Amino acid sequence: MSAVQQLTLHLPAWIDEVVDWQKVYQNDEEKMALAVELSRQNVLRGSGGPFGSAIFDCASGKLVSVGVNRVMPLHNSTAHGEMMAIMLAEQSVQSFSLSADGVKRELFTSCEPCAMCLGGTLWSGVKRLVCAATADDARAIGFDEGPVYDTSYDYLKNTGVEVVRQVLRDEAKAVLDAYLHSGGTIYNG
Amino acid sequence: MSAVQQLTLHLPAWIDEVVDWQKVYQNDEEKMALAVELSRQNVLRGSGGPFGSAIFDCASGKLVSVGVNRVMPLHNSTAHGEMMAIMLAEQSVQSFSLSADGVKRELFTSCEPCAMCLGGTLWSGVKRLVCAATADDARAIGFDEGPVYDTSYDYLKNTGVEVVRQVLRDEAKAVLDAYLHSGGTIYNG
Repeated sequence: MSAVQQLTLHLPAWIDEVVDWQKVYQNDEEKMALAVELSRQNVLRGSGGPFGSAIFDCASGKLVSVGVNRVMPLHNSTAHGEMMAIMLAEQSVQSFSLSADGVKRELFTSCEPCAMCLGGTLWSGVKRLVCAATADDARAIGFDEGPVYDTSYDYLKNTGVEVVRQVLRDEAKAVLDAYLHSGGTIYNG
Repeated sequence: MSAVQQLTLHLPAWIDEVVDWQKVYQNDEEKMALAVELSRQNVLRGSGGPFGSAIFDCASGKLVSVGVNRVMPLHNSTAHGEMMAIMLAEQSVQSFSLSADGVKRELFTSCEPCAMCLGGTLWSGVKRLVCAATADDARAIGFDEGPVYDTSYDYLKNTGVEVVRQVLRDEAKAVLDAYLHSGGTIYNG
């Protein structure tokens, strides 16, 4: 007998109902509105935790990939929204680095990344990280964020990643709170 | 047009030639010898970076899953050995937590985890983390480990994860050094 040696990760079937793949996004608020809408729809449609992400081409404002949290439906503790968006963007460009081709890309996420996703952001090659809700907003409803420190963000910045925080924070925090009030599972390790 | 919304992660085809899935592992050295052998074979066979991992059932000594670094061949910066082993173990038990069923499981890795994998270890639900080569051994050949601090390990321990370091360190470090000398790519973000 050999154990499981392969697995598939996929976004929920409703993504194309919510995402306009042709749209040109004009500014940080428009881009973050998509990440937050993905988090909200993921809760409403019961397809995972209250987190959404999207990766854009900085210069063109075009969408590269999206991600939503898929931990529970896919039985996969690593399937956070950021990780899904990163893996799918890398599939799209067929490279393990989102900057290897000289194109600058940026990750928008509805909540500041946990320790795993902050590390994952570093390896992804995105050059900009934009966050909505804070790690404390996530902790306030019971999610563990892991060992993330001010020095972790400094580390990211020192490698050349620009970090912007609290864009549409209230909108994103409202989704976290709605998830808690709807009885959503808080699925720490 | 809709972007990529699904991806598949798989171990190399040679895994079953190297792994005895029926073996009962008696102690930490036997378990780590497998993780290190996976790292060595991954280099020799050109199927990824110089890192291997394995997850065991602590009580029975039975193997649950293995992982090797697949970053370059799968175009996936998150496909570190630890992440592969965690995702495959969770598929095997069909849960996002490797402790939800009350069974205690342990992750052996040929090198101390990077920031992403340390976070991933926390979310996986394993109750024991055993490492061979040190983060400094990886840094010495040019790999970035990201923002991992003593406090990161303290965080892990405070959630109930036992951490053991430098089991078969020399053997694992030799694989890292061999990778460098063979001209292996150092693929930071």
